[in-house]
Amino acid sequence: MRIEIFAIGGEIVSGLVVNSNAAYLSRILTEEGWEVLVHTALPDQKKLLASFLKNAWQRSDCLLLTGGLGPTHDDVTRTVLAEMFASPLEFNPEVAKDLEKRYGAQLQSLRDQATVPSKAKILRNEAGTAPGLLFEEEEKCLIAMPGVPSEMESIFQTGALPFLRKKWGSSTRKKHKKIHLCMLAESTVDAVLRRFHQSCPHVDVGIYMSYGFLTAVFTGEKEEDLIRGVRTVEEAFPNNVFSQHTSRIEEAIYALFVEKKWKLGVAESCTGGEIASRLTSVPGASHYFQGSIVSYSNEVKREVLRVPEEMLRNPGAVSKETAEAMAQGVLNLMDVDWALSVTGIAGPSGGTEEKPVGTVWIALAQRNHPPEAHHFKWVGSREKIMLLATHYALGMLWQRVAKGASKT
Amino acid sequence: MRIEIFAIGGEIVSGLVVNSNAAYLSRILTEEGWEVLVHTALPDQKKLLASFLKNAWQRSDCLLLTGGLGPTHDDVTRTVLAEMFASPLEFNPEVAKDLEKRYGAQLQSLRDQATVPSKAKILRNEAGTAPGLLFEEEEKCLIAMPGVPSEMESIFQTGALPFLRKKWGSSTRKKHKKIHLCMLAESTVDAVLRRFHQSCPHVDVGIYMSYGFLTAVFTGEKEEDLIRGVRTVEEAFPNNVFSQHTSRIEEAIYALFVEKKWKLGVAESCTGGEIASRLTSVPGASHYFQGSIVSYSNEVKREVLRVPEEMLRNPGAVSKETAEAMAQGVLNLMDVDWALSVTGIAGPSGGTEEKPVGTVWIALAQRNHPPEAHHFKWVGSREKIMLLATHYALGMLWQRVAKGASKT
Repeated sequence: MRIEIFAIGGEIVSGLVVNSNAAYLSRILTEEGWEVLVHTALPDQKKLLASFLKNAWQRSDCLLLTGGLGPTHDDVTRTVLAEMFASPLEFNPEVAKDLEKRYGAQLQSLRDQATVPSKAKILRNEAGTAPGLLFEEEEKCLIAMPGVPSEMESIFQTGALPFLRKKWGSSTRKKHKKIHLCMLAESTVDAVLRRFHQSCPHVDVGIYMSYGFLTAVFTGEKEEDLIRGVRTVEEAFPNNVFSQHTSRIEEAIYALFVEKKWKLGVAESCTGGEIASRLTSVPGASHYFQGSIVSYSNEVKREVLRVPEEMLRNPGAVSKETAEAMAQGVLNLMDVDWALSVTGIAGPSGGTEEKPVGTVWIALAQRNHPPEAHHFKWVGSREKIMLLATHYALGMLWQRVAKGASKT
Repeated sequence: MRIEIFAIGGEIVSGLVVNSNAAYLSRILTEEGWEVLVHTALPDQKKLLASFLKNAWQRSDCLLLTGGLGPTHDDVTRTVLAEMFASPLEFNPEVAKDLEKRYGAQLQSLRDQATVPSKAKILRNEAGTAPGLLFEEEEKCLIAMPGVPSEMESIFQTGALPFLRKKWGSSTRKKHKKIHLCMLAESTVDAVLRRFHQSCPHVDVGIYMSYGFLTAVFTGEKEEDLIRGVRTVEEAFPNNVFSQHTSRIEEAIYALFVEKKWKLGVAESCTGGEIASRLTSVPGASHYFQGSIVSYSNEVKREVLRVPEEMLRNPGAVSKETAEAMAQGVLNLMDVDWALSVTGIAGPSGGTEEKPVGTVWIALAQRNHPPEAHHFKWVGSREKIMLLATHYALGMLWQRVAKGASKT
């Protein structure tokens, strides 16, 4: 089943907003075993939108639209769909009644939002005012949802996805398996995957990287071939595979700490709170994550984490000693089993010849064990170095706790 | 000048990776005054890619491609471009020499990366191995860049953008003005913009929102009409306009604190480090930002921020009193002029009848002044509540320091 996803709105094509809706929908649809063929983003221009939708409708089985349904005057999706499906806009008293019940009769956009193409089936929007619209013609369907992510997600989960599952059943699904690795470069894994693909050419192999994280995807007909692909990667990189279920290492870390009943504290300098932010993005993180001291200034390193003033002067705030002292500071401040710390120079300024921009120390300490610190030297923009430092710190934490905890 | 942006790679259409490259390129191209018409994302499938590129080449003046140029075996962009421009793949000794100089002769992908379509002009990749490729035919051009953001950005900034500026000059530019607001709902601003559009119908007005942040964009022929649009918004919402230059309030906060020579410390609970992460994403943040105590557990609130145990029991960790005590804790720990604190229930669990999920307190304290706390009750997912809490905390900080600092 071929699916195309459209994002409609000047905010996407002008770069004000990243098209995260398409990624959200694609991830779920791919997990279901369906194929997402194209993402398209267009401005709110009637003619352009109509022509793109017409082409896609011929090519694919299902079109999912996000955006352009709101109450603002520049939204055009409803008008275009009314013409495309010869389905004039009509006031729908049931939608109006539902909106009035939830938002009151004084809702400014009530009349607008309740005016919908007559042939559309209404998908209730439990998170906002613009309802989703579903059109079905023979085997094909088009579903339009608002662009606000929370509203789109609500309509997709409660209306669109159950509809697609029922319409298509399980016979339409492609088989695939994913495997997620940390602390690896693309070229290292690619050689292994090339060899596997040569020995098993019927399996499609994809490889996707993001600053030290890497996902390999095997797609094919036979389950056993896909399992062989996954095993090949597991055997080649036994200490780097953190999950077959999630690309988010923070979820693997959560599961690990909850299982072992351990608690974690963090001290971050150059990552600026991003490590804590990733860890707390997982619901239930409070079961193991106690907190992070974002010690961006030397003063906070000294006054809160008790890193000695002399150490901050020499060997300096970015050093093995300071990274270890930050981790020790967390163990002293918080009732935790593990402490993770990061200190480095993200740039663009602040580098020296001895410690150029991109110099990062990551330390990990288990209570009652000596801390261990690792040194990195990356090249690139501030954003890239902050991302690499965050990803390698999370990778080291996972690797040490999952693979090496019993050794110390 | 009509531009289309293509992202090529299964990682985008399968939802593994968000298409942030398209947003990055669009933002800069729109700032330059050019029009980005379409974003398209496609998998690495030769036929599909060739047919989409052919259509776009007829429709638009410039195609920018990202992805599919890497050394991995599933990358097809070079092959498709070689056919499209009847320009066979050839080994380019200059590219090889440059790569060898920078990465050594043992670079595995050297031969692959130095094999490029013969008619392509090479755009040097200073951040990686895959060079950018530029094709020109009459008035049109196509530029292919790698998908890794840092490499794409490097080639775009040093090669593609200077080329486009020279090729198109300044006559091709559309005029536009943006204005960025915080702590506002779309519907509030929309009424004002509708009235403006009625009085000035030749100006296009776009409105884009993101969890409490809002950008209005005016596009038209006459500078004075655009200025009128901006003034209309400024007059209607004098305390909410934080910039005409950046949609990132953290940049406005940075400028404000550096100008006033003030320092800031933060204590965050339910935002989990995201406030610190946003603030430190701005280069030079260390000039004013001292740190954040991510006090996710009550223990850290008590032991580090010195929030009294009795207060955490009653009225509780999510209360006016605790929010104010957290801010006071920051003032006691750090040598700062301002302290910002957030405590709340992001969910999905942890809510009670009295304090449901979405209950958030934000406090702000200037040294030697009483703290002030504000109460919010939002409805939605964990992610939405964390984003709203982050955005309103940053908005309150900016508003108080920019607009109300002298009043207390």
